[in-house]
Amino acid sequence: MFVKNTWYVAAWSSEVHADRLFSRVLLDTPVLLWRDAQGQVRALEDRCCHRGAPLSRGRLEGDKVRCLYHGLLFAPDGQCIEVPAQDRIPPNARVRGYPVVETKQWVWIWMGDPELANPADIPDTYWLDDPAWRYREGYLHYNVNYLLVTDNLLDFSHLPYVHPNTVGGDESFARLRPTIENVKDGLRISRWHLSSPPAPFVRKVTDWTDPVDRWNIYDFLVPGILLMHSGSAPAGTGAPEGRFEQAVEFRSAQAVTPETANSCHYFFSQAHNFCIDDPKVTDVIHQVLIDAFNEDHAMIHAQQNNLALDPAFEMVPVGLDAALNRFRWMIDKRLEQERAAAAPVSARARPEAATLAS
Amino acid sequence: MFVKNTWYVAAWSSEVHADRLFSRVLLDTPVLLWRDAQGQVRALEDRCCHRGAPLSRGRLEGDKVRCLYHGLLFAPDGQCIEVPAQDRIPPNARVRGYPVVETKQWVWIWMGDPELANPADIPDTYWLDDPAWRYREGYLHYNVNYLLVTDNLLDFSHLPYVHPNTVGGDESFARLRPTIENVKDGLRISRWHLSSPPAPFVRKVTDWTDPVDRWNIYDFLVPGILLMHSGSAPAGTGAPEGRFEQAVEFRSAQAVTPETANSCHYFFSQAHNFCIDDPKVTDVIHQVLIDAFNEDHAMIHAQQNNLALDPAFEMVPVGLDAALNRFRWMIDKRLEQERAAAAPVSARARPEAATLAS
Amino acid sequence: MFVKNTWYVAAWSSEVHADRLFSRVLLDTPVLLWRDAQGQVRALEDRCCHRGAPLSRGRLEGDKVRCLYHGLLFAPDGQCIEVPAQDRIPPNARVRGYPVVETKQWVWIWMGDPELANPADIPDTYWLDDPAWRYREGYLHYNVNYLLVTDNLLDFSHLPYVHPNTVGGDESFARLRPTIENVKDGLRISRWHLSSPPAPFVRKVTDWTDPVDRWNIYDFLVPGILLMHSGSAPAGTGAPEGRFEQAVEFRSAQAVTPETANSCHYFFSQAHNFCIDDPKVTDVIHQVLIDAFNEDHAMIHAQQNNLALDPAFEMVPVGLDAALNRFRWMIDKRLEQERAAAAPVSARARPEAATLAS
Repeated sequence: MFVKNTWYVAAWSSEVHADRLFSRVLLDTPVLLWRDAQGQVRALEDRCCHRGAPLSRGRLEGDKVRCLYHGLLFAPDGQCIEVPAQDRIPPNARVRGYPVVETKQWVWIWMGDPELANPADIPDTYWLDDPAWRYREGYLHYNVNYLLVTDNLLDFSHLPYVHPNTVGGDESFARLRPTIENVKDGLRISRWHLSSPPAPFVRKVTDWTDPVDRWNIYDFLVPGILLMHSGSAPAGTGAPEGRFEQAVEFRSAQAVTPETANSCHYFFSQAHNFCIDDPKVTDVIHQVLIDAFNEDHAMIHAQQNNLALDPAFEMVPVGLDAALNRFRWMIDKRLEQERAAAAPVSARARPEAATLAS
Repeated sequence: MFVKNTWYVAAWSSEVHADRLFSRVLLDTPVLLWRDAQGQVRALEDRCCHRGAPLSRGRLEGDKVRCLYHGLLFAPDGQCIEVPAQDRIPPNARVRGYPVVETKQWVWIWMGDPELANPADIPDTYWLDDPAWRYREGYLHYNVNYLLVTDNLLDFSHLPYVHPNTVGGDESFARLRPTIENVKDGLRISRWHLSSPPAPFVRKVTDWTDPVDRWNIYDFLVPGILLMHSGSAPAGTGAPEGRFEQAVEFRSAQAVTPETANSCHYFFSQAHNFCIDDPKVTDVIHQVLIDAFNEDHAMIHAQQNNLALDPAFEMVPVGLDAALNRFRWMIDKRLEQERAAAAPVSARARPEAATLAS
Repeated sequence: MFVKNTWYVAAWSSEVHADRLFSRVLLDTPVLLWRDAQGQVRALEDRCCHRGAPLSRGRLEGDKVRCLYHGLLFAPDGQCIEVPAQDRIPPNARVRGYPVVETKQWVWIWMGDPELANPADIPDTYWLDDPAWRYREGYLHYNVNYLLVTDNLLDFSHLPYVHPNTVGGDESFARLRPTIENVKDGLRISRWHLSSPPAPFVRKVTDWTDPVDRWNIYDFLVPGILLMHSGSAPAGTGAPEGRFEQAVEFRSAQAVTPETANSCHYFFSQAHNFCIDDPKVTDVIHQVLIDAFNEDHAMIHAQQNNLALDPAFEMVPVGLDAALNRFRWMIDKRLEQERAAAAPVSARARPEAATLAS
């Protein structure tokens, strides 16, 4: 079960081309992505309504897509408009189309009720498009349920333990309780680590050895979007007073999108606004991120193996889980709402009648 | 569930040897094949009745087979005739034997009620044994239910889409409705494609560039046997008038045999009766076939992946499916008959009594 | 279902280190093994009670183990003693600890009720520690239920069939019925093969070509422990009279421990007390054992594949199965006892009341 009525990241813009059919499984559904003649990204169910073949093995004919198993032709909205050797098109011959919005280097898709899709609800990742910032595009595939990845991202106390040589730092970092606030569709998590040794990745892009003030302030939004402002500055010169003149600052955009119940996609980037004309700095920052996220990858798959051995295993909650528990509760509430909305009207609207009947 | 009372292709003759035990899983059952002293192919369940070890890891002793786990010895009919360290053979110590007929380079096996096995029911693939024809033996393994492969073979409209550079041809081929007739245990499917560009594989073995008449006439028989007469001739000189003097002609024998519910064997060949003394022509024709069938293999596995993502997926039927739907209906009817025949006599013969009792 | 209240071999002593966390899945449970400051082997569930991460990816801090996902710290008995960013430790924050006994090069673990764990019940493998004997340590992993491996070890009639060139010998070996006696928690199986050709592995370490008397006498104990005295001596000079002066003698210690329902660990060794100062002899004997056990490995996996094809397959019992059937019966009885002991008191102690109520 996945939340349907929400925007998911389907791809980096750079993954979708005008002359190539791109396929990715999202929420248990094969999805075909391509650019039409106007350059606009289109999304169809990547499963021909006839015998289930992937349209992505097919052929673009202008803005139409022909299935190259038996030759059915589909309009960009998914309507079948040609079936070889017959004139009449069966009325149910169509594949599902999905609302898609491409903005700031990400392709967002809406897998739920298209009536509810509002592009204004898409989180703003402005720095992905802003020439003042530099980053590389990252992607990892996970063979675990996506909530194990969002759990990870909702509790940064794992940084010094999982990432001591990359994005982590002194273990005192883990002993700080972050501030957690509600924001629309998610949580804002803020952590100030004052007068602490600079983290390994910061030492790679500065010559700092003296203590720094470090901050991580991020919104974590349904269905699994992390938008972060972070940085470090010489201790005492930095935030929380908001004086970033001497700081190294980062903007991170990360998104977790379910593939199946047991796998997910992870899109990520870490932008910087200093040394923006030195691609080596961008490379170093990106490589540290990849190294760090491979550390998470190994840990989370090991966790998943352990959980699979005992379906009855019950986790012991601790204070560190505050944010991830709140986020899981948000997801559950959304799922419940969608289930209720999908139930037949009689069961929804007249519970008292159901009670009488039973 | 598989049809049991029918002849399946178990192997090419060349796969079964006198001095080697050959094993293949057919219809969820491990089957041992070898040649006895008379050169006759024998088939036993390849699973020792004692602890389930494969007899194919055992040893031939004349016409007997010894299991090389614990030493039980079996007669060629499957009866156990020796158990180490005891004189008495348990009466149920036997493995199942299967009727086998080797004819025209194929080994056919009957996995159902042996009383019903009639070699006269085996389809005639005479050209596999006829010196006027040449071919190479082909085999592919599929990790899909066998019906996805028979579906493919029952609708040649996929040829121009899946095989544009091998056995396909102009897309107008797909716009022709074939003639479909009932024959004993199957369907006869006939397609005449007049005045069309020669197919790529025909261009490889002729110097033709002008339009040809092309025909594909095949019987597709339960459980999954394709026997085809096909060919091309300069447009106007050819069939349907039946004048094949200037034609290139082919005979194809293909068979799909279930391995498990999710895998199957595919045996194939494409014989030609021209240039029979030029092995390069035979090689070229065979290589085109392998290339084409690898194209099917990729498409059908991609289709299977898509179907696995949604067990509730419902295919939209179109006119192209006429033959495959009729064939699936034949298979279902056979399954139903076998189920009914397997039901207890009381339930079969006296339904009224059953009704009274309930 | 596995017997719980019994000692299992968890590892060779040499696998467990003071400065390294070792992990192995035993009875569906991930288990962490290490040596404390006193060199004593400790065992904890290798699954942090917080989010299920493996403690084996963690860090030793003296005799404590820190989980390196979120930093929880555990005492050697499994009690959580530190949770980052909070003072109070949840009372249920603990991982399970297991009684462990290291003796004679094996680490034994008790996965059941710790109250019942009695080190005196551990079988004696004295020769693993005796300077008069030499051996190498062996280990194999199986992807089959452990009972298929214990079946194999309980019926040595497979030796001449599976191992003709390693530990097997003349097939007359298989025609001898061994003596089977009850011993505490298992069976004693004795086989004397008089005046037979020396086995291949014996020929490798002697210059014998004349017939020998060969014996294999072993206890096979719950849950899957084989302790064997075996050897060969020139025919007529040897046992059963117990005169071993001219014999080559071996002591074998082997143990099968379930990993999951479909996989297991196999620990083994074959000690000799002749040529003990010639490591090449020890190597030769060990290599033959590895070759032989790879032969079993191939056969048992092939058997498992065959059994998996038909869950309804029923084995035909023969006399050879006497020991393995008795052993399987012992295991079943133990499982039944443990189930009964685990049932609620009302159901156990007052069956008559249950009868009345029903």
